[in-house]
Amino acid sequence: MSSIRAIFSLAVVILVASPLAAEEARDVPARQLPLPEAASSDLRAMIQSGSMATWNDHPATADEWKAWVDKGAERARAALPILREKMGVTFEAGRIAGVNIFTITPKEIAPENRDRVLIHFHGGGYVLNPGEAGTAEAIMMAGYGHVRVISVDYRMPPDFPYPAAMDDALAVYRGVLATNDASRIGVFGTSTGGGMTLALVLRARAENLPLPGAIAAGTPWSDLQKVGDSYFANDSVDNVLVRYEGWLGDAAKLYAAGHDMRDPYLSPIYGDYHGFPPTILASGTRDLFLSNTVRVHRKLREAGSTADLVVFEGLSHAQYLFSADMPEAKEYFRELSTFFTAHLKS
Amino acid sequence: MSSIRAIFSLAVVILVASPLAAEEARDVPARQLPLPEAASSDLRAMIQSGSMATWNDHPATADEWKAWVDKGAERARAALPILREKMGVTFEAGRIAGVNIFTITPKEIAPENRDRVLIHFHGGGYVLNPGEAGTAEAIMMAGYGHVRVISVDYRMPPDFPYPAAMDDALAVYRGVLATNDASRIGVFGTSTGGGMTLALVLRARAENLPLPGAIAAGTPWSDLQKVGDSYFANDSVDNVLVRYEGWLGDAAKLYAAGHDMRDPYLSPIYGDYHGFPPTILASGTRDLFLSNTVRVHRKLREAGSTADLVVFEGLSHAQYLFSADMPEAKEYFRELSTFFTAHLKS
Repeated sequence: MSSIRAIFSLAVVILVASPLAAEEARDVPARQLPLPEAASSDLRAMIQSGSMATWNDHPATADEWKAWVDKGAERARAALPILREKMGVTFEAGRIAGVNIFTITPKEIAPENRDRVLIHFHGGGYVLNPGEAGTAEAIMMAGYGHVRVISVDYRMPPDFPYPAAMDDALAVYRGVLATNDASRIGVFGTSTGGGMTLALVLRARAENLPLPGAIAAGTPWSDLQKVGDSYFANDSVDNVLVRYEGWLGDAAKLYAAGHDMRDPYLSPIYGDYHGFPPTILASGTRDLFLSNTVRVHRKLREAGSTADLVVFEGLSHAQYLFSADMPEAKEYFRELSTFFTAHLKS
Repeated sequence: MSSIRAIFSLAVVILVASPLAAEEARDVPARQLPLPEAASSDLRAMIQSGSMATWNDHPATADEWKAWVDKGAERARAALPILREKMGVTFEAGRIAGVNIFTITPKEIAPENRDRVLIHFHGGGYVLNPGEAGTAEAIMMAGYGHVRVISVDYRMPPDFPYPAAMDDALAVYRGVLATNDASRIGVFGTSTGGGMTLALVLRARAENLPLPGAIAAGTPWSDLQKVGDSYFANDSVDNVLVRYEGWLGDAAKLYAAGHDMRDPYLSPIYGDYHGFPPTILASGTRDLFLSNTVRVHRKLREAGSTADLVVFEGLSHAQYLFSADMPEAKEYFRELSTFFTAHLKS
């Protein structure tokens, strides 16, 4: 008790205080969380709609996973023609180094972006959004940022667990490097795509490749284990992922397939962040991955890297991607555009 | 329901989803929040000590407030000689423009800081930490940053409600401006001190004074009302302030004394952030003021200002000030030092 009192000796400087009995876990009572008054009305409407209907699905076999993923992908694809039209982009399927990719091209490429290209890794827990279904974020980035984007359709479990996704990510990066200066290449993605963005830099560095000029990791899945305070504090506060014990934790196991989840290529929070390119990170106050995001930000800043953090009021996991028109989406893509414009060579 | 479905049309792109029934408030069940594994051991020990003993005190009269404040100030003062010794600083009481101040001088002033000065506003809900008791953050800044600091002992309720504190803040700023170039003046503070830092810039601009070269607002009390999602989401998660319904909400009323709390000089979130000097903001994932912090950060970035945000894992309100030795404290003051070094004229 005396050491705890010693640590607290300065607490009284700010607030009148003295410690109570030691507690191994903090009891937080049940509460009703009102709609966030300071969030956009679009976001409030999303929150009002309740939790994702599928958050607690638990496909049990490879076939069940595939059926579950297919159902989601079908819905996702249905929304894309309207989104491409709205964002004013064309898209084309192709291959780089044997990996399926989509090239998204805006009608107008900004003059400073003429020689730049962004590589995109989609989100979805390493299982969702195969094929075209994974291109929404790339479409919005290309449209809002007036920049070319290559979205990588990396292989996923159940057929292709780790390291297939990262092997594909690296193969595409090598392929893009063959015809582009690294300082003009940006890499970005949200959730799993954010984690892959960080892991790609770790792998590129390990293989002595030149690093991309700048990266953006939106609410990155930086720790596949349930480590990080917001996994607990924002449990059931987040209305997208809701809880680690939903499909998310199952997806972590499916992807890791017995590999150590503390391997930095699976959980990049355990990597070394010295020498990273300029990085922007984003999250929300309700995000189950708030800690996944701020822990990476702290490591980057401690390593002396340029690292920006933005946190949206009342936002759950990756929710800035859910409607291209919501203010939080526009701000997200404006932040990324500004960041890439500032840090990529033109 | 159809508009909600329309907004959700893209949700399926990222995750398999469809909305459930509308909910005006989100039910969050009771939970046990474990110690944050990724926070420092110092911080975990603080969390283990439980809530501030005084968080739910409710002084009812002016005399009760004064007795409560005195008790806290006495404890705070007792810790300061050791802190000054540890940080290698001297301190001297004085007055600027009729306002009581303390000048904190480190033994070694960094060469680039020779012509710089920082103005500090202490925290404590506009009621706590009168006199020397308010100088801990200034001492740590001076010691870790190797820079001169002037800490302002502004007047407080119950005797002096709004606008006394801001009048004193502005008077000192004017006084310091008389002998220092604004571009070499930094302003900083935590909690109430962070809110005052923001309000000072708003008032200085309104009075056509040159603005400080850079500012730091640690977890600023930017909204004195209970507006901001983390007032609800981090209710009882934060172990320092714990709840708005503790002494904090009473202090807001005592200070505002009938003034509109949406006045930007009381709640600077409602101010106009165009033309602000470079600003760094800090908070923690468990901070009751996380929303107070990120809302200001969003407004600054939307206004095109340079604004950095740092968020510490598992940290409650202002907890980085509670022990000079804890890693989160060292990181906080390193962040501020780096920021002032980068943005103040040398």
